[in-house]
Amino acid sequence: MVPMSVTNDALLPAGRYRRMLIELRWGDMDAYGHVNNVAVVRLMEEARVRLLGSPTASVDAERTPGIPVLDDSGDDALKVFVGASASGMLLVSHHAVDYRAQLPYRAGPIAVDMCVTKIGAANLVLGYVIAEPDGSAVYATAETGVVFVDRETGRPKRLSADTLATLEPILVRKRLVRRS
Amino acid sequence: MVPMSVTNDALLPAGRYRRMLIELRWGDMDAYGHVNNVAVVRLMEEARVRLLGSPTASVDAERTPGIPVLDDSGDDALKVFVGASASGMLLVSHHAVDYRAQLPYRAGPIAVDMCVTKIGAANLVLGYVIAEPDGSAVYATAETGVVFVDRETGRPKRLSADTLATLEPILVRKRLVRRS
Amino acid sequence: MVPMSVTNDALLPAGRYRRMLIELRWGDMDAYGHVNNVAVVRLMEEARVRLLGSPTASVDAERTPGIPVLDDSGDDALKVFVGASASGMLLVSHHAVDYRAQLPYRAGPIAVDMCVTKIGAANLVLGYVIAEPDGSAVYATAETGVVFVDRETGRPKRLSADTLATLEPILVRKRLVRRS
Amino acid sequence: MVPMSVTNDALLPAGRYRRMLIELRWGDMDAYGHVNNVAVVRLMEEARVRLLGSPTASVDAERTPGIPVLDDSGDDALKVFVGASASGMLLVSHHAVDYRAQLPYRAGPIAVDMCVTKIGAANLVLGYVIAEPDGSAVYATAETGVVFVDRETGRPKRLSADTLATLEPILVRKRLVRRS
Repeated sequence: MVPMSVTNDALLPAGRYRRMLIELRWGDMDAYGHVNNVAVVRLMEEARVRLLGSPTASVDAERTPGIPVLDDSGDDALKVFVGASASGMLLVSHHAVDYRAQLPYRAGPIAVDMCVTKIGAANLVLGYVIAEPDGSAVYATAETGVVFVDRETGRPKRLSADTLATLEPILVRKRLVRRS
Repeated sequence: MVPMSVTNDALLPAGRYRRMLIELRWGDMDAYGHVNNVAVVRLMEEARVRLLGSPTASVDAERTPGIPVLDDSGDDALKVFVGASASGMLLVSHHAVDYRAQLPYRAGPIAVDMCVTKIGAANLVLGYVIAEPDGSAVYATAETGVVFVDRETGRPKRLSADTLATLEPILVRKRLVRRS
Repeated sequence: MVPMSVTNDALLPAGRYRRMLIELRWGDMDAYGHVNNVAVVRLMEEARVRLLGSPTASVDAERTPGIPVLDDSGDDALKVFVGASASGMLLVSHHAVDYRAQLPYRAGPIAVDMCVTKIGAANLVLGYVIAEPDGSAVYATAETGVVFVDRETGRPKRLSADTLATLEPILVRKRLVRRS
Repeated sequence: MVPMSVTNDALLPAGRYRRMLIELRWGDMDAYGHVNNVAVVRLMEEARVRLLGSPTASVDAERTPGIPVLDDSGDDALKVFVGASASGMLLVSHHAVDYRAQLPYRAGPIAVDMCVTKIGAANLVLGYVIAEPDGSAVYATAETGVVFVDRETGRPKRLSADTLATLEPILVRKRLVRRS
């Protein structure tokens, strides 16, 4: 990742994103002693799963009872995919990630602020800002294209009006990665 | 992992262990749709790092300010290795893991209850019980041998009297894995 | 992993094992700059899959046509599980790993020599010696208990006479890990 | 990953790329039973390390003596970074990946054909086509921005004339990912 001075610029408008607090693991680091760029893509996966719901929700276990996920400020998820996961798949069609600062390991979670940057008939582009929870540093910004697909036919499935209504409050029509 | 009926037997005496609450990741699952056996060894690493302190503590970032790690019941760490991490290394000499039940993905953390099952001059054996936080299921039990080594010489470093005193309250002289 | 002087002792009798040549990945290293202990368990998984056949063989792709796996000396697999993978699962019941020397990254594969150290009705213990292909260093020795389970019922499935006959030539009744 | 019909179109001009043959691991699959999108980014890392040389070459082990990396057609590496790895770091500044077809696990390697799509003063953009070795399917195309940085100062280091001359034969000024 490229060392850059980052200011805490307002990449996402207040209230137009959902914050997922994701814990790092010591094993996310590589031989350079920083969280590896591939591990950042894994953190994006975990944040995406928490925002939209697990792609395997129909066979997953119940959420741990009685234990909040981190604290009240975190994991304000939309879970639009939970109901559809038995009959549908959520496939990643593309990733774009800009690494803005080296991310060291530490105890305590990192913030992954998520929004939707595009809505199509059967697909979304999700936006991420991976940052310190207090806004003092931005480590990466990213976008992921996802497509909803029928598990039987393998064909794209249209997003329902309900899903669109749920996503609308976090729609931010903005590029979060540079057009390299 | 072998499906077994597990009762919540008292594997570790009350008060003689420290609980680390570790989040699963969707990506910890393999093609069988359960948390992969290798991923369980990664969870053990993360719990170990939190109990004893990060092996790279001298260069890690500060703990996220203002955000508790999960909740008050969790992560009651000893951090005996934090001060030594600049001059020493914590090396794994062996693992033994018994997989007792399949672990499905879910939001919310798993409990990794940790104790010390042996104390040597420069080495420890750590014990783990990986379970539901409410005690309703035990997924795995495990032991890891670790050796404290001087970073310069590569030679084992004796545990200090302070370290021994810190570890004593969680010393449980018991095998947590079967002698296969 | 513990630094130890290792001699190239004959851990496995000549002809009583199968050699899997497995490539390392740069990303297998951790912040200490050596192949991480968890990554070694991943290498064991890959060697196991190649020896016994993929647990998902019924849905995997064909082997790459026209490209040998490494060279003629390698990957002399038994594939006893390939036919059974549609109806059965191969579950890991335990691991034991002794780390004997630090394993640095390099291009070119590592040797994972595999044998069977115990045969039960529906289960096996597999043995591994992870070493330089030229025998100049042993990095780890390990054992894994695996159980063959019916996918529908979740109950153990007996090993067939054919499977037993295939495994017999690499049966080495010997402990490859210390009784810690 | 999005299921798409892919023809074996000539994405890279003959002779203008280097082929890295990378083995899959069973553990690269996720709960959907295909190689996970994050694992594809790991494969890109391994191909990049083999093309340019390991970022930790100064402390890595020697290449396994006497064992070819797969076969004569593969791993025609430039290794321009090997000499610089003691004093410099190779940092990833961005990734862009288009997933074009689901990639199932199999024995035998996948082809990662690599070129350079842009050359800057201290940075490169690398291009990847991840495909069947026989050209029958393309699984992903991707680009990675890398920056050469001085280990002491953290400042970008200019590419030498020698490095530029080595890279020139695989310079393909072409976008390999869609402008999403």
